Amino acid sequence: MNYPNGIKKREELKNDVKISHKNRGMTLEYELNITNEYYREIDKAYIYKKPTPIKIVKVDYPSRDKTVIKEAYFTIPSTTDYNGLYHGKYIDFEAKETQSRTSFAITNIHPHQIEHLKNINRHEGIAFLIIRFTMLGETYLLTISKFLEYLEKTNKKSIPIDFFREEAYLIRDGYRPRVDYLKIVDELMGGKK
Amino acid sequence: MNYPNGIKKREELKNDVKISHKNRGMTLEYELNITNEYYREIDKAYIYKKPTPIKIVKVDYPSRDKTVIKEAYFTIPSTTDYNGLYHGKYIDFEAKETQSRTSFAITNIHPHQIEHLKNINRHEGIAFLIIRFTMLGETYLLTISKFLEYLEKTNKKSIPIDFFREEAYLIRDGYRPRVDYLKIVDELMGGKK
Repeated sequence: MNYPNGIKKREELKNDVKISHKNRGMTLEYELNITNEYYREIDKAYIYKKPTPIKIVKVDYPSRDKTVIKEAYFTIPSTTDYNGLYHGKYIDFEAKETQSRTSFAITNIHPHQIEHLKNINRHEGIAFLIIRFTMLGETYLLTISKFLEYLEKTNKKSIPIDFFREEAYLIRDGYRPRVDYLKIVDELMGGKK
Repeated sequence: MNYPNGIKKREELKNDVKISHKNRGMTLEYELNITNEYYREIDKAYIYKKPTPIKIVKVDYPSRDKTVIKEAYFTIPSTTDYNGLYHGKYIDFEAKETQSRTSFAITNIHPHQIEHLKNINRHEGIAFLIIRFTMLGETYLLTISKFLEYLEKTNKKSIPIDFFREEAYLIRDGYRPRVDYLKIVDELMGGKK
Protein backbone atom coordinates (compact mmCIF):
# COMPACT_ATOMS: atom_id res chain seq x y z
CA MET A 1 0.00 0.00 0.00
CA ASN A 2 1.15 3.47 -0.79
CA TYR A 3 1.90 5.79 2.01
CA PRO A 4 -0.75 8.51 2.42
CA ASN A 5 0.23 12.15 2.19
CA GLY A 6 1.20 13.93 5.33
CA ILE A 7 2.31 10.82 7.18
CA LYS A 8 5.84 9.70 6.61
CA LYS A 9 8.02 6.85 7.63
CA ARG A 10 10.92 7.75 9.84
CA GLU A 11 13.43 7.32 7.00
CA GLU A 12 11.47 9.73 4.83
CA LEU A 13 11.29 12.24 7.65
CA LYS A 14 15.08 12.10 7.87
CA ASN A 15 15.30 12.79 4.15
CA ASP A 16 13.03 15.78 4.52
CA VAL A 17 15.31 17.26 7.13
CA LYS A 18 18.29 16.68 4.86
CA ILE A 19 16.49 18.38 1.98
CA SER A 20 15.51 21.40 4.04
CA HIS A 21 19.12 21.77 5.20
CA LYS A 22 20.07 22.00 1.56
CA ASN A 23 17.47 24.74 1.35
CA ARG A 24 15.29 22.77 -1.01
CA GLY A 25 12.48 23.85 1.20
CA MET A 26 8.92 22.88 1.78
CA THR A 27 6.94 19.85 0.64
CA LEU A 28 4.52 20.19 -2.25
CA GLU A 29 1.64 19.37 0.08
CA TYR A 30 2.56 22.22 2.42
CA GLU A 31 3.00 24.65 -0.47
CA LEU A 32 -0.37 23.69 -1.94
CA ASN A 33 -2.00 24.16 1.45
CA ILE A 34 -0.67 27.71 1.81
CA THR A 35 -1.54 28.41 -1.82
CA ASN A 36 -5.14 27.30 -1.25
CA GLU A 37 -5.26 29.34 1.96
CA TYR A 38 -4.11 32.36 -0.01
CA TYR A 39 -6.75 31.78 -2.70
CA ARG A 40 -9.40 31.72 0.06
CA GLU A 41 -8.02 34.86 1.70
CA ILE A 42 -8.34 36.84 -1.53
CA ASP A 43 -11.75 35.18 -2.20
CA LYS A 44 -10.51 33.65 -5.44
CA ALA A 45 -11.23 29.94 -5.01
CA TYR A 46 -12.37 27.45 -2.36
CA ILE A 47 -10.18 24.41 -2.80
CA TYR A 48 -9.26 22.13 0.12
CA LYS A 49 -7.19 19.08 0.78
CA LYS A 50 -9.44 16.25 1.95
CA PRO A 51 -8.62 14.63 5.28
CA THR A 52 -6.58 11.41 5.04
CA PRO A 53 -9.03 8.50 4.99
CA ILE A 54 -8.66 6.14 7.94
CA LYS A 55 -10.56 3.18 9.33
CA ILE A 56 -11.15 3.61 13.04
CA VAL A 57 -11.09 0.37 15.01
CA LYS A 58 -10.90 1.39 18.66
CA VAL A 59 -12.01 4.55 20.42
CA ASP A 60 -11.66 5.43 24.11
CA TYR A 61 -13.67 7.90 26.18
CA PRO A 62 -11.44 8.85 29.11
CA SER A 63 -13.93 11.57 30.05
CA ARG A 64 -17.33 12.84 28.98
CA ASP A 65 -16.14 15.33 26.40
CA LYS A 66 -12.92 13.66 25.33
CA THR A 67 -12.51 11.00 22.69
CA VAL A 68 -9.23 9.32 21.86
CA ILE A 69 -8.75 7.12 18.83
CA LYS A 70 -6.58 4.24 20.09
CA GLU A 71 -6.41 2.08 16.98
CA ALA A 72 -6.90 3.07 13.36
CA TYR A 73 -5.47 2.28 9.95
CA PHE A 74 -4.84 4.23 6.79
CA THR A 75 -7.13 3.22 3.95
CA ILE A 76 -6.64 3.65 0.22
CA PRO A 77 -8.38 6.84 -0.93
CA SER A 78 -11.16 6.35 -3.49
CA THR A 79 -10.86 9.89 -4.79
CA THR A 80 -8.14 12.50 -5.12
CA ASP A 81 -6.63 14.64 -2.38
CA TYR A 82 -7.85 18.06 -3.50
CA ASN A 83 -11.14 19.40 -4.74
CA GLY A 84 -13.16 22.56 -4.69
CA LEU A 85 -14.74 25.45 -6.51
CA TYR A 86 -13.25 28.09 -8.79
CA HIS A 87 -15.25 30.51 -10.94
CA GLY A 88 -18.33 28.32 -10.72
CA LYS A 89 -16.27 25.34 -11.89
CA TYR A 90 -15.55 22.08 -10.08
CA ILE A 91 -11.79 21.53 -9.66
CA ASP A 92 -10.27 18.15 -8.79
CA PHE A 93 -6.64 17.08 -8.65
CA GLU A 94 -4.02 14.82 -7.17
CA ALA A 95 -0.54 16.08 -6.25
CA LYS A 96 2.63 14.01 -6.02
CA GLU A 97 6.34 14.59 -5.56
CA THR A 98 8.99 12.37 -7.03
CA GLN A 99 12.66 12.15 -6.14
CA SER A 100 13.45 10.83 -9.62
CA ARG A 101 15.24 13.12 -12.09
CA THR A 102 14.07 11.20 -15.13
CA SER A 103 10.48 9.99 -14.78
CA PHE A 104 7.30 9.78 -12.73
CA ALA A 105 6.11 6.28 -11.73
CA ILE A 106 2.45 5.82 -12.70
CA THR A 107 1.88 3.51 -9.70
CA ASN A 108 1.95 6.68 -7.58
CA ILE A 109 -1.61 7.28 -8.73
CA HIS A 110 -4.06 4.54 -7.63
CA PRO A 111 -6.21 2.95 -10.36
CA HIS A 112 -9.43 4.17 -8.69
CA GLN A 113 -8.00 7.68 -8.54
CA ILE A 114 -7.44 7.50 -12.30
CA GLU A 115 -11.01 6.22 -12.68
CA HIS A 116 -12.23 9.09 -10.52
CA LEU A 117 -10.36 11.71 -12.57
CA LYS A 118 -11.82 10.21 -15.78
CA ASN A 119 -15.32 10.55 -14.33
CA ILE A 120 -14.71 14.16 -13.35
CA ASN A 121 -13.36 14.94 -16.80
CA ARG A 122 -16.37 13.35 -18.51
CA HIS A 123 -18.77 15.36 -16.33
CA GLU A 124 -17.18 18.70 -17.17
CA GLY A 125 -15.11 19.12 -14.04
CA ILE A 126 -11.54 20.37 -14.35
CA ALA A 127 -9.25 17.45 -13.50
CA PHE A 128 -5.47 17.30 -13.45
CA LEU A 129 -2.31 16.14 -11.72
CA ILE A 130 0.30 18.35 -10.11
CA ILE A 131 3.65 16.56 -10.25
CA ARG A 132 6.83 17.91 -8.73
CA PHE A 133 10.27 16.65 -9.66
CA THR A 134 11.83 17.71 -6.37
CA MET A 135 15.47 17.20 -7.41
CA LEU A 136 14.97 19.19 -10.59
CA GLY A 137 12.93 21.91 -8.92
CA GLU A 138 10.24 21.55 -11.60
CA THR A 139 6.50 21.41 -10.88
CA TYR A 140 4.01 20.54 -13.63
CA LEU A 141 0.28 20.63 -14.13
CA LEU A 142 -0.69 17.71 -16.37
CA THR A 143 -4.30 17.70 -17.57
CA ILE A 144 -6.16 14.46 -17.13
CA SER A 145 -6.74 14.19 -20.89
CA LYS A 146 -3.00 14.34 -21.61
CA PHE A 147 -2.37 11.84 -18.83
CA LEU A 148 -4.98 9.41 -20.20
CA GLU A 149 -3.65 9.88 -23.73
CA TYR A 150 -0.23 8.80 -22.46
CA LEU A 151 -1.67 5.76 -20.61
CA GLU A 152 -3.47 4.62 -23.76
CA LYS A 153 -0.48 5.01 -26.05
CA THR A 154 1.98 3.11 -23.90
CA ASN A 155 2.26 0.29 -21.41
CA LYS A 156 5.27 1.76 -19.68
CA LYS A 157 5.16 2.06 -15.91
CA SER A 158 6.39 5.63 -15.82
CA ILE A 159 6.16 8.97 -17.60
CA PRO A 160 9.50 10.46 -18.68
CA ILE A 161 10.35 14.03 -17.70
CA ASP A 162 10.41 14.97 -21.39
CA PHE A 163 6.71 14.20 -21.68
CA PHE A 164 6.07 16.72 -18.90
CA ARG A 165 8.36 19.27 -20.52
CA GLU A 166 6.46 18.95 -23.81
CA GLU A 167 2.88 18.21 -22.83
CA ALA A 168 2.35 19.64 -19.34
CA TYR A 169 2.36 23.17 -17.97
CA LEU A 170 5.29 24.33 -15.87
CA ILE A 171 4.08 26.02 -12.69
CA ARG A 172 6.61 28.65 -11.71
CA ASP A 173 7.47 29.11 -8.00
CA GLY A 174 6.10 32.28 -6.54
CA TYR A 175 5.96 34.06 -3.25
CA ARG A 176 2.22 34.55 -2.87
CA PRO A 177 0.69 32.37 -4.06
CA ARG A 178 3.49 29.86 -3.73
CA VAL A 179 2.28 27.41 -6.42
CA ASP A 180 -0.05 29.43 -8.63
CA TYR A 181 -1.75 26.53 -10.43
CA LEU A 182 -4.96 28.51 -11.00
CA LYS A 183 -3.04 30.66 -13.47
CA ILE A 184 -2.72 27.51 -15.59
CA VAL A 185 -6.38 26.64 -14.97
CA ASP A 186 -7.25 30.10 -16.33
CA GLU A 187 -5.39 29.21 -19.52
CA LEU A 188 -7.19 25.86 -19.70
CA MET A 189 -10.56 27.53 -19.25
CA GLY A 190 -9.59 30.08 -21.87
CA GLY A 191 -8.90 27.15 -24.19
CA LYS A 192 -5.13 27.45 -24.76
CA LYS A 193 -2.93 24.37 -25.46
CA MET B 1 -17.18 19.76 20.64
CA ASN B 2 -19.72 18.14 18.39
CA TYR B 3 -19.43 14.49 17.66
CA PRO B 4 -18.29 13.81 14.10
CA ASN B 5 -20.44 11.77 11.76
CA GLY B 6 -19.92 8.06 11.64
CA ILE B 7 -18.49 7.81 15.13
CA LYS B 8 -20.96 7.42 17.92
CA LYS B 9 -20.89 7.25 21.65
CA ARG B 10 -21.97 3.97 23.13
CA GLU B 11 -25.30 5.43 24.30
CA GLU B 12 -26.08 6.63 20.79
CA LEU B 13 -25.22 3.26 19.35
CA LYS B 14 -27.74 1.73 21.74
CA ASN B 15 -30.35 4.20 20.52
CA ASP B 16 -29.64 3.26 16.94
CA VAL B 17 -30.27 -0.36 17.72
CA LYS B 18 -33.50 0.57 19.45
CA ILE B 19 -34.57 2.64 16.46
CA SER B 20 -33.80 -0.11 13.98
CA HIS B 21 -35.83 -2.56 16.09
CA LYS B 22 -38.74 -0.22 15.69
CA ASN B 23 -38.05 -0.41 11.97
CA ARG B 24 -37.16 3.25 11.73
CA GLY B 25 -34.22 2.07 9.74
CA MET B 26 -30.94 3.45 8.59
CA THR B 27 -29.08 6.60 9.50
CA LEU B 28 -29.15 9.57 7.16
CA GLU B 29 -25.39 9.25 6.63
CA TYR B 30 -25.74 5.64 5.52
CA GLU B 31 -28.65 6.46 3.24
CA LEU B 32 -26.74 9.33 1.65
CA ASN B 33 -23.75 7.06 1.12
CA ILE B 34 -25.80 4.47 -0.75
CA THR B 35 -27.57 7.24 -2.65
CA ASN B 36 -24.23 8.69 -3.79
CA GLU B 37 -23.01 5.21 -4.69
CA TYR B 38 -26.11 4.75 -6.81
CA TYR B 39 -25.58 8.11 -8.54
CA ARG B 40 -22.04 6.97 -9.42
CA GLU B 41 -23.24 3.58 -10.65
CA ILE B 42 -25.63 5.18 -13.12
CA ASP B 43 -22.97 7.82 -14.00
CA LYS B 44 -25.21 10.66 -12.84
CA ALA B 45 -23.05 12.50 -10.30
CA TYR B 46 -19.77 12.15 -8.42
CA ILE B 47 -20.46 13.25 -4.88
CA TYR B 48 -18.56 11.83 -1.91
CA LYS B 49 -18.53 12.14 1.84
CA LYS B 50 -15.19 13.52 2.97
CA PRO B 51 -13.20 11.47 5.49
CA THR B 52 -13.62 12.54 9.11
CA PRO B 53 -10.81 14.99 9.93
CA ILE B 54 -8.48 13.77 12.66
CA LYS B 55 -5.20 14.89 14.14
CA ILE B 56 -2.75 12.03 14.31
CA VAL B 57 -0.43 12.13 17.32
CA LYS B 58 1.19 8.70 17.48
CA VAL B 59 1.85 6.12 14.79
CA ASP B 60 3.43 2.68 15.20
CA TYR B 61 5.18 0.54 12.58
CA PRO B 62 4.94 -3.05 13.88
CA SER B 63 6.26 -4.29 10.54
CA ARG B 64 7.65 -2.88 7.31
CA ASP B 65 4.35 -2.56 5.46
CA LYS B 66 2.02 -2.04 8.40
CA THR B 67 1.17 1.23 10.05
CA VAL B 68 -1.07 1.55 13.08
CA ILE B 69 -2.37 4.85 14.37
CA LYS B 70 -2.14 4.56 18.16
CA GLU B 71 -3.28 8.00 19.20
CA ALA B 72 -5.42 10.47 17.30
CA TYR B 73 -8.16 13.00 17.99
CA PHE B 74 -11.19 14.22 16.10
CA THR B 75 -10.86 17.78 14.90
CA ILE B 76 -13.57 20.26 13.96
CA PRO B 77 -14.17 20.17 10.20
CA SER B 78 -13.51 23.44 8.36
CA THR B 79 -15.78 22.52 5.49
CA THR B 80 -18.90 20.43 4.99
CA ASP B 81 -19.16 16.66 4.85
CA TYR B 82 -20.21 16.21 1.24
CA ASN B 83 -19.07 17.69 -2.04
CA GLY B 84 -18.76 16.77 -5.66
CA LEU B 85 -19.76 17.26 -9.24
CA TYR B 86 -23.16 17.12 -10.94
CA HIS B 87 -23.88 18.24 -14.50
CA GLY B 88 -20.73 20.37 -14.57
CA LYS B 89 -21.80 22.05 -11.31
CA TYR B 90 -20.04 22.08 -7.95
CA ILE B 91 -22.29 20.63 -5.21
CA ASP B 92 -21.62 21.15 -1.49
CA PHE B 93 -23.74 20.24 1.50
CA GLU B 94 -23.92 19.29 5.14
CA ALA B 95 -26.35 16.66 6.43
CA LYS B 96 -27.74 16.37 9.95
CA GLU B 97 -30.33 14.36 11.79
CA THR B 98 -32.28 15.65 14.73
CA GLN B 99 -34.34 13.71 17.27
CA SER B 100 -36.46 16.78 17.93
CA ARG B 101 -40.03 16.84 16.64
CA THR B 102 -40.30 20.62 16.74
CA SER B 103 -37.05 22.31 15.64
CA PHE B 104 -33.49 22.01 14.40
CA ALA B 105 -30.74 23.48 16.64
CA ILE B 106 -28.51 25.82 14.62
CA THR B 107 -25.49 24.90 16.77
CA ASN B 108 -25.46 21.59 14.87
CA ILE B 109 -23.80 23.50 12.03
CA HIS B 110 -20.37 24.94 12.95
CA PRO B 111 -19.85 28.66 12.28
CA HIS B 112 -17.00 27.94 9.83
CA GLN B 113 -19.24 25.51 7.99
CA ILE B 114 -21.79 28.29 7.60
CA GLU B 115 -18.98 30.57 6.39
CA HIS B 116 -17.88 27.88 3.95
CA LEU B 117 -21.40 27.43 2.55
CA LYS B 118 -21.69 31.21 2.09
CA ASN B 119 -18.44 31.22 0.11
CA ILE B 120 -19.64 28.37 -2.10
CA ASN B 121 -22.93 30.12 -2.71
CA ARG B 122 -21.20 33.38 -3.66
CA HIS B 123 -18.93 31.56 -6.12
CA GLU B 124 -21.81 29.88 -7.96
CA GLY B 125 -21.59 26.49 -6.33
CA ILE B 126 -24.80 24.77 -5.27
CA ALA B 127 -24.86 24.77 -1.47
CA PHE B 128 -27.50 23.41 0.89
CA LEU B 129 -28.32 21.51 4.06
CA ILE B 130 -30.07 18.16 4.27
CA ILE B 131 -31.89 17.95 7.59
CA ARG B 132 -33.80 14.90 8.77
CA PHE B 133 -36.36 15.00 11.56
CA THR B 134 -35.93 11.34 12.42
CA MET B 135 -38.94 11.05 14.72
CA LEU B 136 -41.21 12.67 12.15
CA GLY B 137 -39.77 10.73 9.23
CA GLU B 138 -39.29 13.98 7.29
CA THR B 139 -36.11 14.90 5.37
CA TYR B 140 -35.64 18.38 3.93
CA LEU B 141 -33.27 20.10 1.56
CA LEU B 142 -32.81 23.70 2.70
CA THR B 143 -30.91 25.97 0.31
CA ILE B 144 -28.12 27.98 1.83
CA SER B 145 -29.83 31.24 0.81
CA LYS B 146 -33.00 30.33 2.72
CA PHE B 147 -30.88 29.24 5.68
CA LEU B 148 -28.91 32.52 5.69
CA GLU B 149 -32.13 34.51 5.30
CA TYR B 150 -33.44 32.82 8.44
CA LEU B 151 -30.21 33.49 10.39
CA GLU B 152 -30.35 37.18 9.47
CA LYS B 153 -33.98 37.64 10.41
CA THR B 154 -33.77 36.04 13.82
CA ASN B 155 -31.49 35.47 16.74
CA LYS B 156 -33.15 32.26 17.78
CA LYS B 157 -30.98 29.23 18.36
CA SER B 158 -33.13 26.87 16.36
CA ILE B 159 -35.24 26.63 13.22
CA PRO B 160 -38.82 25.45 13.79
CA ILE B 161 -40.18 22.53 11.76
CA ASP B 162 -42.75 24.89 10.21
CA PHE B 163 -39.97 26.88 8.54
CA PHE B 164 -38.79 23.67 6.87
CA ARG B 165 -42.33 22.74 5.85
CA GLU B 166 -42.81 26.15 4.23
CA GLU B 167 -39.37 27.11 2.91
CA ALA B 168 -37.45 23.88 2.31
CA TYR B 169 -37.98 20.99 -0.09
CA LEU B 170 -39.25 17.69 1.24
CA ILE B 171 -37.13 14.80 -0.04
CA ARG B 172 -39.34 11.75 -0.35
CA ASP B 173 -37.96 8.34 0.68
CA GLY B 174 -37.28 6.09 -2.24
CA TYR B 175 -35.90 2.65 -2.93
CA ARG B 176 -33.14 3.48 -5.42
CA PRO B 177 -31.93 6.11 -4.92
CA ARG B 178 -32.85 6.10 -1.25
CA VAL B 179 -32.65 9.91 -0.71
CA ASP B 180 -33.03 11.42 -4.15
CA TYR B 181 -31.81 14.94 -3.34
CA LEU B 182 -30.57 15.56 -6.89
CA LYS B 183 -34.19 15.63 -8.00
CA ILE B 184 -34.51 18.78 -5.87
CA VAL B 185 -31.18 20.10 -7.21
CA ASP B 186 -32.64 19.69 -10.73
CA GLU B 187 -35.53 21.92 -9.68
CA LEU B 188 -33.11 24.46 -8.20
CA MET B 189 -31.04 24.49 -11.38
CA GLY B 190 -34.22 24.84 -13.38
CA GLY B 191 -35.00 27.88 -11.24
CA LYS B 192 -38.13 26.79 -9.37
CA LYS B 193 -38.91 28.07 -5.82
